[in-house]
Amino acid sequence: MQHRAAMFCRMLEKGFHSSAQRANKHHLRFPPLTSVDLPDIWIPRHDASIAKTCSPHLKTNSIGQTARVLEGKPIANNINSRISAEICEMKSTIGKTPGLGVILVGGRRDSQSFVHIKMKACMKVGIAPFTVELPEDCTEAELFDAVSSFNENPLIHGVVVQLPLPKHLDEEKIISYVSPEKDVDGFHPTNVGNLAMRGREPSFIPCASKGCIELLLWNDVEIKGKNVVVVGRSKLVGLPTSLLMQRHHATVTTVHAFTGNPEHVTCGADILVSDIGVPNMIRGHWLKPGVVVVDMGANSVEDTGSLQGHRLIGDVCYEEAIVKASAITPVPGGVGPITISMLLSNTVDAAKRTYRNT
Amino acid sequence: MQHRAAMFCRMLEKGFHSSAQRANKHHLRFPPLTSVDLPDIWIPRHDASIAKTCSPHLKTNSIGQTARVLEGKPIANNINSRISAEICEMKSTIGKTPGLGVILVGGRRDSQSFVHIKMKACMKVGIAPFTVELPEDCTEAELFDAVSSFNENPLIHGVVVQLPLPKHLDEEKIISYVSPEKDVDGFHPTNVGNLAMRGREPSFIPCASKGCIELLLWNDVEIKGKNVVVVGRSKLVGLPTSLLMQRHHATVTTVHAFTGNPEHVTCGADILVSDIGVPNMIRGHWLKPGVVVVDMGANSVEDTGSLQGHRLIGDVCYEEAIVKASAITPVPGGVGPITISMLLSNTVDAAKRTYRNT
Repeated sequence: MQHRAAMFCRMLEKGFHSSAQRANKHHLRFPPLTSVDLPDIWIPRHDASIAKTCSPHLKTNSIGQTARVLEGKPIANNINSRISAEICEMKSTIGKTPGLGVILVGGRRDSQSFVHIKMKACMKVGIAPFTVELPEDCTEAELFDAVSSFNENPLIHGVVVQLPLPKHLDEEKIISYVSPEKDVDGFHPTNVGNLAMRGREPSFIPCASKGCIELLLWNDVEIKGKNVVVVGRSKLVGLPTSLLMQRHHATVTTVHAFTGNPEHVTCGADILVSDIGVPNMIRGHWLKPGVVVVDMGANSVEDTGSLQGHRLIGDVCYEEAIVKASAITPVPGGVGPITISMLLSNTVDAAKRTYRNT
Repeated sequence: MQHRAAMFCRMLEKGFHSSAQRANKHHLRFPPLTSVDLPDIWIPRHDASIAKTCSPHLKTNSIGQTARVLEGKPIANNINSRISAEICEMKSTIGKTPGLGVILVGGRRDSQSFVHIKMKACMKVGIAPFTVELPEDCTEAELFDAVSSFNENPLIHGVVVQLPLPKHLDEEKIISYVSPEKDVDGFHPTNVGNLAMRGREPSFIPCASKGCIELLLWNDVEIKGKNVVVVGRSKLVGLPTSLLMQRHHATVTTVHAFTGNPEHVTCGADILVSDIGVPNMIRGHWLKPGVVVVDMGANSVEDTGSLQGHRLIGDVCYEEAIVKASAITPVPGGVGPITISMLLSNTVDAAKRTYRNT
């Protein structure tokens, strides 16, 4: 039996070494912030100042453990500072800066707000922002033209089409039209395929998924060999997070609308990632004591006490989870800020590749 | 709580309807055997004659159920007959036949044997076979040239590079070089990405994974909502089977070398799919009573009693599993024959698309 298990391991590990070896090659002119080569296991980039700021919020949970609140902002600030320094170096060395082009269709307030946040973050670190705004009723041809012009613009290294699009536009077709080499959102099918297949390297990994892993690694949460349950399988978050977790050698189960007894599955999770979009759906009894909870939900709920009349809450009932988990992300302020950093990071990577090749 | 669950379902189901609607469109000049449009749920193509031949082998298992032996050969024969009829019709209508090009590098006996089986199957149904054999020490450029010539040949609709390749050749690079429109193995990253993402349609689905689903559907095994555990995550079988099972709305867990307690995970499976390559690794105590077992392993073991001195056995200990499972595939004679049918089917689909567009 032991012999069989050893064979099993040897066989399944075969691919890993070659991939890890590839990950050690240095292709880049600038030191990578997040490597273009996707290692099977990321090497967390620890920073003593971050360690201090990351673990001040502690609560004692039901099994006597101290629950850490995994705050994303200090990590995002640290990453952004490093991106900013890299861009300064790029500018002084070759006189170039990265550029990010964002296309916004229609007047959705949440989309406008997301685009505003992205543009502001770009400017803060020195990435040149480009935007195109199209009316709600724009034609597919007009949208294709906008994507084309960004695909062809040598000053733009990353292209984002803000989702969701109005219903008359075919989202999948548009996503496929973004150049895979500028697809900093990582949604192009070629990039998703390369993410799914071990031994391959996608040009870009979707930002929220990458942010989730970054957050865990910065906080020394082991992923390899852990039971990870991802609740939800959206193309933006759930699916790529499942794929990425599997690359990190977690045993991944994906829960969705057809899962008969989701709380039974989630109770087996060492790490639970939630991407549902339903406020407080995951309750305390869905969780195993000591679980690490990454709440990727951001649900706007009415709040008469707040200035705006609403506030953001997650998919996980925070009050119930905090006393059961060993660590949990807050909403807002968890993976969200790191997601933006990952977009900036992907854009810098894209620029590096372009300038390396010219 | 019910309200939340309903929201969850509605939200996650949103994508399905549009995809199902697309699946109902008839793009093809010939009636599809396996639809080019990938439905979220396949409609099994039942045939009374098959039903009779599929379930004659019954054993009573430990919970008093009758274990069915899910034989692939009768299904494969039926599918092949239908493919053959389709090709006859294609020939009589437009005077064309599909063509499959297979490239074999080096002298591996198992690869030679697989190529021989594929070519023979092609000829039997009327697909024109093309082969290129390259020496073990051929250069990457020579292999690229061979792929190119098949990619460009209008008489060839499907291109297969027989795997594994000798170690000096970069398998991933070669796979990416096969035209996605002729990638009847379904291993091109764009096709894998489109398989992973619901709402998208890959040009081709890997044959073994498609064969696994076909076998289950022909035998009326429900997939939606079931706990499916896939043991192994190879790019040829395990990974695409996990992705495809998820498209069929199973709750999928993938077990691999880093899974701490694999038998604990497999014990939760309603359907267990094995892609390990280790003979008899999965024992009776790894299985839940009543499980459906699909053994995708084909391991050659010494057998002094046989004429060849060896025989094929699966990853699952058949004798222990047959008394615990409600249904199980034999090895050989399970998914294997259907896998070949799926290759033929993918090639016919490719030819249909070509002739539809010309």
